[in-house]
Amino acid sequence: MNPVKASICTIGDEILIGQIVDTNSSMISRALGAIGVRTSHMLSLGDERSEIINLLSNELNSNEIVVSTGGLGPTKDDITKDALAELSGSHAYVKHEEQEAIVHKILKARGLDVLNINLRQALVPDTCEVIVNRRGTAPIMVFRFPTDRFGHPAVLYAMPGVPYETEAALPDVINDIKQHFKLESIYHKTIMTYGLAESALSELIAPWEDSLPADMHLAYLPNPLTGVRLRISLFNAGEDAESRVNARIEALKPLLGDNLYSEQDDTLEAVVGRLLKAKGSTLSVAESCTGGEIAHLITTVPGSSDYFLGSVTSYAPEIKQKILGVKASLIKEKGIVSSAVAEAMAEGVRRVTGSTFSVATTGWADAYGDEHEPAGTVWVGVSGPSGTCSKRFQYKGDRKRNIERFAASALDYLRRYIIK
Amino acid sequence: MNPVKASICTIGDEILIGQIVDTNSSMISRALGAIGVRTSHMLSLGDERSEIINLLSNELNSNEIVVSTGGLGPTKDDITKDALAELSGSHAYVKHEEQEAIVHKILKARGLDVLNINLRQALVPDTCEVIVNRRGTAPIMVFRFPTDRFGHPAVLYAMPGVPYETEAALPDVINDIKQHFKLESIYHKTIMTYGLAESALSELIAPWEDSLPADMHLAYLPNPLTGVRLRISLFNAGEDAESRVNARIEALKPLLGDNLYSEQDDTLEAVVGRLLKAKGSTLSVAESCTGGEIAHLITTVPGSSDYFLGSVTSYAPEIKQKILGVKASLIKEKGIVSSAVAEAMAEGVRRVTGSTFSVATTGWADAYGDEHEPAGTVWVGVSGPSGTCSKRFQYKGDRKRNIERFAASALDYLRRYIIK
Repeated sequence: MNPVKASICTIGDEILIGQIVDTNSSMISRALGAIGVRTSHMLSLGDERSEIINLLSNELNSNEIVVSTGGLGPTKDDITKDALAELSGSHAYVKHEEQEAIVHKILKARGLDVLNINLRQALVPDTCEVIVNRRGTAPIMVFRFPTDRFGHPAVLYAMPGVPYETEAALPDVINDIKQHFKLESIYHKTIMTYGLAESALSELIAPWEDSLPADMHLAYLPNPLTGVRLRISLFNAGEDAESRVNARIEALKPLLGDNLYSEQDDTLEAVVGRLLKAKGSTLSVAESCTGGEIAHLITTVPGSSDYFLGSVTSYAPEIKQKILGVKASLIKEKGIVSSAVAEAMAEGVRRVTGSTFSVATTGWADAYGDEHEPAGTVWVGVSGPSGTCSKRFQYKGDRKRNIERFAASALDYLRRYIIK
Repeated sequence: MNPVKASICTIGDEILIGQIVDTNSSMISRALGAIGVRTSHMLSLGDERSEIINLLSNELNSNEIVVSTGGLGPTKDDITKDALAELSGSHAYVKHEEQEAIVHKILKARGLDVLNINLRQALVPDTCEVIVNRRGTAPIMVFRFPTDRFGHPAVLYAMPGVPYETEAALPDVINDIKQHFKLESIYHKTIMTYGLAESALSELIAPWEDSLPADMHLAYLPNPLTGVRLRISLFNAGEDAESRVNARIEALKPLLGDNLYSEQDDTLEAVVGRLLKAKGSTLSVAESCTGGEIAHLITTVPGSSDYFLGSVTSYAPEIKQKILGVKASLIKEKGIVSSAVAEAMAEGVRRVTGSTFSVATTGWADAYGDEHEPAGTVWVGVSGPSGTCSKRFQYKGDRKRNIERFAASALDYLRRYIIK
């Protein structure tokens, strides 16, 4: 069975002229991939009627599914909507009552008057079906084309382009695809690793990877903040998909050891948070080179106030002394970027806040470095009920990239300390 | 004169299956736009030889310039490079000595042996010119096609896909385009505003915008962290472009007042940093709901250690008391999210660190809120030589978006205090 193919098209100048980065296409492609639909192209085109008609027709010629986003705002919708009306042979617009009610509701909540331009959003070509958009005013239009039009059954989903609206409507689109296409069944499982670069990880698990059956596929998805995500996909999956994949993961675990930090799509800060919550423990942070990034990551997790007490960013050496109680003589003797200072910072912030655990960083995020340590070095200190320890990490990125890697290394080192 | 048109193509499965978000296309499109080249399409395609040949030919048919990125890694380059060789009618590869020397140098710096697979990176079809890639092993290949091939002169630039390498090589590609095409001259100027939403800003400056001459174009580029960027573009610009645009900006300034924070592409944290540096002043930060984001933003600016002393994230109320000296009775009486607590935090962190200025936040980033203030509210306090003050801001986003807006509002409020 050949996989069903899809093309993802974004309509609008904002992406084309580089004003905004297109994150919708990637989100849609992942959702399609998860149900076994293969994305063959991604395409961005401008707000021009004839271009929209020509290029979407092209894509419908070579794909069973086209998902478009954008071009449906209140000031621009005429172009895209008219183009879609022409493409689908419609000569009349019809009002969609449920979407019109949503338009009224949304504008009222924003304290705005409902203008004609807003009500036009609820008008759609009579050739389409509608999936309502609960987060915005423009509905999702579904155009189904019979086989004789493009040589195969084809469907065009025209979605709004605001990522918050696209994301909310995507599950309905995916459901519609599942109902209308015979799809290769596919089962995915994601696990998270930290501590090994992609190449080292790949070498380590090569014997296991080579032994995977032909219908199981492994993908490496590296990210500076979360480490290497491993995704195992099982194509034409039967009832036993989950148990077959889980059996393989059990065989992988001894190879990964503590480098495995979650058996679902996850982040280090969320895992650390769950560990702390389970223990009823609290955390504090002392940052230098990471400048607040660790505290920021921890507090992006909803409910982090249950375990996170606070942090001190001691950018100037005097703050390390004044607030964290790190001795000036220690800094002078060992260097500001050193095992001793990282440990003293961790102990200092734990003492000041009274937290169960603490983690601290001191390093050189960019070109500086000193006689003790070169640029790209960070010392991470961790302190807790079983004592204080520290570890050195070395990276070769620019300032921003190093800050990210330093913060992730610190969270991972803390995680390993907590589970030990 | 019709503008020269370009298509930007990314080659490789990583983008197509949604593993990574494509940021190269947006970067390339902005660089092309700045020299007056119009991007007509962006396209992502997979690592398949016939697809690459067909789709790139299509794009060369309708565009004078095609810029491709990706598909040139050591394990995959055969497919894309062979496809480009076929597309350009090449039957032989030639070694590029300078790029080969770079391959040796890069691998040596990484402590790796030079394998044949690496040396193949320096081989290119004999139909192309080379722009060397100093940050990576795969060179930029430039294929020039005569008019009779696609009905117009056309050039294909095949660039590596690693953003760090693409970014470094882009100026050379842009220079080559400037040398080989007669371009519409274009002059851009960007100014930064904070404090007015796009719609309010647009209403405020409508009379000024309506009076712009036909060859001047204004774009609004809103961003939660930097406010609304205004870009003025002058097409077919003559020698007097800069002075004509500057005269318009002078007329705009009285309308914008202190909402204008920079007359170049900029960030609030960079502007605050320059203001502090110029005064020889220092800064400290006390964060609650922003959880480290303000300190993080400040320390992403290179050289921030010249003025940034440090910060305290007092997530738990006791930390506000213990480190910042905020009285428990004040928190109880006024509420943790209040003018009084924001001001006490700002004064507290300034006292502890001895900084010239300080800024503090206390707010509800998500669903909580209390009897005093609803979710989405932040109180920002600022303290400095001329006293302490505070201001309330109210937003309606999710947790992450509110944290961003709170941090930007705090930086902007601090900026206004410093320049007063």
